Amino acid sequence: MAKLVLIRHGQSEWNLQNRFTGWWDVDLTEKGVAEAKKSGQMLASSGVSFSEAFVSVQKRAIRTLWIALEEMGRTWLPVTKDWRLNERHYGGLTGLNKAETAEKHGDEQVKIWRRSYDVPPPPMEKGAEFDPANDVRYAGLDVPMTESLKLTLERVMPYFNSEIAPKLKAGENILVAAHGNSLRAIVKDLFSVADDVITGVEIPTGNPLLIELDDNLKVVSAKYLDADRATELPKF
Amino acid sequence: MAKLVLIRHGQSEWNLQNRFTGWWDVDLTEKGVAEAKKSGQMLASSGVSFSEAFVSVQKRAIRTLWIALEEMGRTWLPVTKDWRLNERHYGGLTGLNKAETAEKHGDEQVKIWRRSYDVPPPPMEKGAEFDPANDVRYAGLDVPMTESLKLTLERVMPYFNSEIAPKLKAGENILVAAHGNSLRAIVKDLFSVADDVITGVEIPTGNPLLIELDDNLKVVSAKYLDADRATELPKF
Repeated sequence: MAKLVLIRHGQSEWNLQNRFTGWWDVDLTEKGVAEAKKSGQMLASSGVSFSEAFVSVQKRAIRTLWIALEEMGRTWLPVTKDWRLNERHYGGLTGLNKAETAEKHGDEQVKIWRRSYDVPPPPMEKGAEFDPANDVRYAGLDVPMTESLKLTLERVMPYFNSEIAPKLKAGENILVAAHGNSLRAIVKDLFSVADDVITGVEIPTGNPLLIELDDNLKVVSAKYLDADRATELPKF
Repeated sequence: MAKLVLIRHGQSEWNLQNRFTGWWDVDLTEKGVAEAKKSGQMLASSGVSFSEAFVSVQKRAIRTLWIALEEMGRTWLPVTKDWRLNERHYGGLTGLNKAETAEKHGDEQVKIWRRSYDVPPPPMEKGAEFDPANDVRYAGLDVPMTESLKLTLERVMPYFNSEIAPKLKAGENILVAAHGNSLRAIVKDLFSVADDVITGVEIPTGNPLLIELDDNLKVVSAKYLDADRATELPKF
């Protein structure tokens, strides 16, 4: 029996401004830092002993993890960073706020991009202001130009299955710090959530989701450590 | 031609109190945090592009690295943590301040332990207050109970030679955040410093040492980025 904890990063600057963030590398707000601290304190109290941690290559998730590890007295824990745990790439919507997106594309269309499982937004234009393709951290990688949730899952889960799942099957407790949609991908898979249900599953920021898994990675129990900020979990 | 940067952690709580720290996991002081920030800013200005970083499993070095990476906009850089980059283990002296050590062992003896290359202090007593042997991060490892600088070198260099040197030989730029004596070990080897000279080489805290190496890891140039706080470097 292994424990997997998923943490969605604390509030970011663009969460606050209601802008589509995706792969743009915004930082945490002060509230986000506080959420990360509280996550670490709750994880310390939980008594779960982790053997290692995984995180995206995005600052808001990395800082959430670092702050939590400091609170846990576990700065020394091995950490693997990988872009396949990144947030969903919002393509040409990246950087736009709600009002700008509605003006440009219409409310109905935006709702489709947000809420459908397999409709990606228009691709990022090459050389656009918020195009991360020239970022040195993605050099040499075949990075996406836009993603639906389905496409997000199709790069998260091969990574999860090859790098994280074998360790869980071996009984190791693993901590994953990532993003709303990369964590949705993992939750969809572990809880067998239907395509049209998963986009409605909201994972709160900075609230560790503790999942117990059996040797076949079947969910045995699942709960948010901060019960006051918990959202409804899918059936298992 | 590769670049290797060595950073000694910023001032720690026990540096300030003049206590033998060794493997005890003290945190940075406010001044230490400021030194780490400045290190990061100087590394950003240096324009060196690192492919990865290595650090001990001790909080003062890890936080120095994290703070520097934040300043450099490189939180996403791969980081490998290993106990073989830890500070010299000061055995039974761990936790004692200057006055306590002199009272217990006499000034002359303390000078020998501090300044000789191959005389280790008395071993840590099992179960003593500052014994790190029961720390979960060292579980299953054959950890030392005391170390001379020579013994420190004998665990640092096999690690350096197997994990870091091949990457430098391949032309990668590498950042190492560690401790006064684990960095002395690396400097002794790269600069071919004599046994009786190396204990007098002082590496300043929070001042990145930038070393250019040829394909055989021969030192081509070396300088501290903060010239105002530089100490004399060994000949090469």
